[in-house]
Amino acid sequence: MWVVPEKEIAGLMTLEAAFDAVESVFAAMASGDAYNFPVVREAIGHKDALYGFKGGFDSQSLSLGLKAGGYWPHNHEQGLINHQSTVFLFDPDTGRVSAAVGGNLLTALRTAAASAVSTKYLAPKGAKVLGMIGAGHQAAFQMRSALRFGQFEKVIGWNLHPEMLSRLADVAAEFGVPFQTVGLDQLGEQADVIISITSSYDPILMDAHVTGPTHIAAMGTDTQGKQELDPALVARAALFTDEVAQSLGIGEFQHAAAQKLILEDNVIALGRIINGDHPGRGDAEVTIFDGTGVGLQDLAVASAVVKLAKQQGKAIEVEI
Amino acid sequence: MWVVPEKEIAGLMTLEAAFDAVESVFAAMASGDAYNFPVVREAIGHKDALYGFKGGFDSQSLSLGLKAGGYWPHNHEQGLINHQSTVFLFDPDTGRVSAAVGGNLLTALRTAAASAVSTKYLAPKGAKVLGMIGAGHQAAFQMRSALRFGQFEKVIGWNLHPEMLSRLADVAAEFGVPFQTVGLDQLGEQADVIISITSSYDPILMDAHVTGPTHIAAMGTDTQGKQELDPALVARAALFTDEVAQSLGIGEFQHAAAQKLILEDNVIALGRIINGDHPGRGDAEVTIFDGTGVGLQDLAVASAVVKLAKQQGKAIEVEI
Repeated sequence: MWVVPEKEIAGLMTLEAAFDAVESVFAAMASGDAYNFPVVREAIGHKDALYGFKGGFDSQSLSLGLKAGGYWPHNHEQGLINHQSTVFLFDPDTGRVSAAVGGNLLTALRTAAASAVSTKYLAPKGAKVLGMIGAGHQAAFQMRSALRFGQFEKVIGWNLHPEMLSRLADVAAEFGVPFQTVGLDQLGEQADVIISITSSYDPILMDAHVTGPTHIAAMGTDTQGKQELDPALVARAALFTDEVAQSLGIGEFQHAAAQKLILEDNVIALGRIINGDHPGRGDAEVTIFDGTGVGLQDLAVASAVVKLAKQQGKAIEVEI
Repeated sequence: MWVVPEKEIAGLMTLEAAFDAVESVFAAMASGDAYNFPVVREAIGHKDALYGFKGGFDSQSLSLGLKAGGYWPHNHEQGLINHQSTVFLFDPDTGRVSAAVGGNLLTALRTAAASAVSTKYLAPKGAKVLGMIGAGHQAAFQMRSALRFGQFEKVIGWNLHPEMLSRLADVAAEFGVPFQTVGLDQLGEQADVIISITSSYDPILMDAHVTGPTHIAAMGTDTQGKQELDPALVARAALFTDEVAQSLGIGEFQHAAAQKLILEDNVIALGRIINGDHPGRGDAEVTIFDGTGVGLQDLAVASAVVKLAKQQGKAIEVEI
């Protein structure tokens, strides 16, 4: 078994490698060559923790395994990250465990890669203004990935607590791009691409805020009850996601679906565009990508990092 | 993270430690202090493999984690065991992975411990004759555990392929106990305790074979369609299991339940007897324990072996 410790990931994994891994696995999912297993997610009744497993198998890349871990809300009191996870890879030819990889940074990178992949395929032509909703830890990863792979000339941002927007200003400065704090109406009017990455339980971006052409990557909603977008906005947009069933169950599209504003057939797997099986935004004014987060993304970036760690002599081999 | 390799397990784990761990976790399950998560089990469409996860949390012993792995039917062609699994333990206070343990031998030991625990609480008084149905790899573990914890003076055995019964004769010789090959009618008449451990899809032991008082540990059925016992025999026995829902869904009692010969209320968690909440066999002529195998058993024996490995300097510490 190869072990790649959490502390090595930052020095090994690149935005490019995460982007390529996630793009490939979305394509494999859409072509039926890769699938996610049912998600296990349990409130274990100890330390208010949520714990579970997201597994899958990609028969193209031969990635098999799971991410295990969850959310420990009191971890920060002892100086630890609240989200803790580890990815385990298995040899699909024998069933033996082949790698254990720290999953904390990888989770942020694969989530940021997913929205960047959606922007590659769905952003309006000549998109220049990036709008950020949310300014937490994950928002910085999202923004960095968007700026790396897009041609943005300006970033505008909104957050419930405006004092946190300095984080986004710092990332903009890294890339030498101007940053401006705006209201939601200004954000919806000016941004060509919007990334929402909050833990909101109420809609933030309303239908009236958004004038197209706009692409929205809704990355925050991964649980029943969470919500970032007005269902009326969802109802008039062209809809894409990583995994349709999960999107309608626990993703951003759960609300519009529950209100019968959209049907399952309205939601397209992003991988179909990657595979050339769907034309993409066409003449849609607004497109939305619902990034719910699937186990196969974790396996894809973990496989990539194990390869890099072996090449660079940073993987530890342990007999098991 | 502590790693305990497969090759160390045999030298670390004892039948006694496995028995104690399984007895404790059955008690914790019955008292509601420990529970198993939904099982993930997938035919991945590669190498005819079945792969999945069995997880759980025991708030008494603070064991959290999962067993991951499965069944690779062609492994033996390359000199590997077909059943391959690894147990991962997590720190329930932080969500960080704490141990990775080879799970192949542990699975055999925890399954053998489960039937021995059932025999401790359910065998008729003065049980002297052990009857074995099945003579595969697992049967030897079952028999060894039964002889270690029971007071058996004789073993009788039946197998579909009688030439394999020499394996059971060897184990009997280890313990200095006589072994005899018998027919099923003789086995059902003479044995005080019967362990069935086959991969049968048809009933083997029929109602007419069994004259009580007898305790039967049905250990082979863990999948829809598998079956070792005549449903009529199940219908007239007092019924116990590790986990009621799993027993009725994929365990031995699935058939009697499907035929409406038994109800959910007829099936008692073995842990209730351990906790003193149920009298046990009472005046029942036949008792049956349906050992379906739960993730918490795996976590219990893995926790025990990690403790022993640390004490004996055989656990490998790896940063992750």
